[in-house]
Amino acid sequence: MTPLVLSTFADQERDRIVTVLMDWLRIPSISADPAQAPAVRQSAEFCARLLAGAGFEHVALIETAGGPAVYGDWLHAGPDAPTVLVYGHHDVQPVDPLGEWTSPPFEPVIVDGECRARGAIDDKGQTLYQIEAARGLLAERGGLPVNLKFIVEGEEEVGSPNFEALLVTEAERLAADVIVVSDTGMISPEVPSTSVSLRGLVAFDVDLRSGRIDLHSGQWGGTVPNAARIAARLVTALHDGTGRVTIPRFYDRVRPLSPPEQASLDAQPYDEALFLSQAGVAYLEGEEGYSPLERTGVRPTAEVVGLRGGYAGPGMKTIVPATAGFKIALRLVPDQRPEEIGQAFGEWLAAQVPPGVEVTVTSLGAVAPALTPIDHPAMAALVTAIERVWGRAPLFTREGGSGPEEALGRVLGAPVLFLGVSLPDDRFHAPNERMVMDQFWKGLLAAGELLVELGALR
Amino acid sequence: MTPLVLSTFADQERDRIVTVLMDWLRIPSISADPAQAPAVRQSAEFCARLLAGAGFEHVALIETAGGPAVYGDWLHAGPDAPTVLVYGHHDVQPVDPLGEWTSPPFEPVIVDGECRARGAIDDKGQTLYQIEAARGLLAERGGLPVNLKFIVEGEEEVGSPNFEALLVTEAERLAADVIVVSDTGMISPEVPSTSVSLRGLVAFDVDLRSGRIDLHSGQWGGTVPNAARIAARLVTALHDGTGRVTIPRFYDRVRPLSPPEQASLDAQPYDEALFLSQAGVAYLEGEEGYSPLERTGVRPTAEVVGLRGGYAGPGMKTIVPATAGFKIALRLVPDQRPEEIGQAFGEWLAAQVPPGVEVTVTSLGAVAPALTPIDHPAMAALVTAIERVWGRAPLFTREGGSGPEEALGRVLGAPVLFLGVSLPDDRFHAPNERMVMDQFWKGLLAAGELLVELGALR
Repeated sequence: MTPLVLSTFADQERDRIVTVLMDWLRIPSISADPAQAPAVRQSAEFCARLLAGAGFEHVALIETAGGPAVYGDWLHAGPDAPTVLVYGHHDVQPVDPLGEWTSPPFEPVIVDGECRARGAIDDKGQTLYQIEAARGLLAERGGLPVNLKFIVEGEEEVGSPNFEALLVTEAERLAADVIVVSDTGMISPEVPSTSVSLRGLVAFDVDLRSGRIDLHSGQWGGTVPNAARIAARLVTALHDGTGRVTIPRFYDRVRPLSPPEQASLDAQPYDEALFLSQAGVAYLEGEEGYSPLERTGVRPTAEVVGLRGGYAGPGMKTIVPATAGFKIALRLVPDQRPEEIGQAFGEWLAAQVPPGVEVTVTSLGAVAPALTPIDHPAMAALVTAIERVWGRAPLFTREGGSGPEEALGRVLGAPVLFLGVSLPDDRFHAPNERMVMDQFWKGLLAAGELLVELGALR
Repeated sequence: MTPLVLSTFADQERDRIVTVLMDWLRIPSISADPAQAPAVRQSAEFCARLLAGAGFEHVALIETAGGPAVYGDWLHAGPDAPTVLVYGHHDVQPVDPLGEWTSPPFEPVIVDGECRARGAIDDKGQTLYQIEAARGLLAERGGLPVNLKFIVEGEEEVGSPNFEALLVTEAERLAADVIVVSDTGMISPEVPSTSVSLRGLVAFDVDLRSGRIDLHSGQWGGTVPNAARIAARLVTALHDGTGRVTIPRFYDRVRPLSPPEQASLDAQPYDEALFLSQAGVAYLEGEEGYSPLERTGVRPTAEVVGLRGGYAGPGMKTIVPATAGFKIALRLVPDQRPEEIGQAFGEWLAAQVPPGVEVTVTSLGAVAPALTPIDHPAMAALVTAIERVWGRAPLFTREGGSGPEEALGRVLGAPVLFLGVSLPDDRFHAPNERMVMDQFWKGLLAAGELLVELGALR
């Protein structure tokens, strides 16, 4: 086997890279929290310094209506060399419930071979190994085999509300032949995989008001509408007895799997006990007639991510609540369209809510589902890179998550590759988020191999 | 018509009494909030000074495991005179949502003939007119027609968790021939009424955990249990399609109304438009086959007073929540028993929750329903007192609320009378709680008349 192009670099630079990772993870760049807007900017500036230090040029913060994105490029591989755009994000999820973290979320530690911190795997770690891979090639070879651009977003964890507008405005600067997204995962360290699809997302906050004020439950209870009960009824009515979403037309555009995709899905190892243990749950549920891997990867879903109503303080308050609400995320698959599904949800809601109850629906973002062509030459380059590092060709999966990848491919008109090293139990969006350091170093090596392979496509 | 015994006193002392009311209402004695424990004590001390200033003796704070109660007596009416125990409470409800108050809850104002503040009607105002009525008789006559005791509780708004124990311990000190509760209301200023029953209450907090941690909704959504959805399903399953509570054996002991009670209920004026406007809701719902007055007064109910789960912050967090919960108040009517209903609820819950989901049920209090005998001579005294002040004999109602009144009557072995002046739209437990000042002054006059009438029973 040919030695890997960045083996020596990774070994020699190890301590510095770990230090950089820890420093970046100490910045609480929570994009959902307006109070952390300065930290999101600080994180962007940190990333910009990283890119400049690695040898990138034209490094700049791209301002948006929200948190800034970071851009940098190295464009000296020549006009015949392909241009590659790497996508990552530097913002992170909120950290509550804080009490469940075994160490503070923004005081990163490395324990038992894993780095624990908010943003470790999602997505600072995965962005860092891409930047360091480029730095390594530039340092060791004095140049890159491709023209390379980075776009590191600052609003991914709030649904990328300004990212498509950014892509349109910056289409020329970001133009590329191939896009590499570094924000996904693989089945296990022993079973590498790459995603050929990401679920989309359309999300809403639904606020209900059933009366002018909370009423005394003794005096009025039993005859006035209760907003908390209405919210509960709506959430319950969202699924039928077979686990299917009851929104009209929800499944109309769901594209059946192609035979090769179905074959790849069927070839994925699935160990129910391991799956349960990684999820930390006692049982599975969901749409009848589909396996857990199908439910999370190829089927659309409706998840209630938050529920609220009435009194939430200590002890009791004897009221009939006048207000309640919920937040809902509808995960979409090809060829569902966010705007159609959003409209269908609105119609469903209007039909469900009793007249006289005020409903306020706020959009919390929309991302279309994404697909990558399996037969593109760039995909062969990715397969080779992963096989060299993990010793085995990747399986093709569909990723459950959503991101701005669909907009990247559609607006920039280029195929999207997914090089991601996260593992199913990395506690994405949850307390004690982690990155397995061995996967991080393999990611760095694979990113180097991928640039070499893509350079060979010229 | 004979002049009312306290007309002159009320007129002359008006400004002082208003000042005392405002001072008491400025104390934030929220018993549900541990941080306000000092305020609850301050309120008890305020009440003790009031009683002492009015001429009561043996004034003392009675300590409990929670907030202190206040005691005082005047026992010089002679051994032949009846002994009367007046009950009120000096603690108040929490104030959220704070943003909906038009003036701060603990900065009382009198506007348009109504006093607006937390605790104005529930129950500082109603306790104050009883104390002032006794002060007036003592000042004008040098004595009272009855032996009079006061017990002013400090934990009523959290379900009186220590009150029955207090009654048992203090049974001798509190012994009385008649109990007068001053914490209820009447149908309208034009239609005075008195309650002959109070619904009981058994309340719980139910906490659910469906997994170890919140999971990424993209990665896991569609196949793992969602605690918020489970909470919603439970809340929804609590009622069937006809509005009946689905807890087994829930209705088994509900006693049918006696013919005179049914006749009195049927004679109550009911104006649906007014009822809706007072409640501030657009429509009514509830158990099929019963009128709104029956639903709130004579039927047991299940109200969800709080609902929680997952992410409640701004914007979106793409999780499948691992934890959720709700608070529930089951209102009970004669002859339902709190312990039986609590047990039936626990069994219902165990049957509803999927295996593998952790359930933690915390009791938030239990109060049995109460009934007052209509034919007791003390009831005739109350009817006379109310008729003198409001110009019309009271209708007999059942009150929807719950309180420690059942324990008072049962432990002390005395009939319980309800002299209460609150109105249906006084915003009990809600923002902008108010007391109509005209009702307050009438309450003071009626309390004086009632003492005179009860004194005549010797």
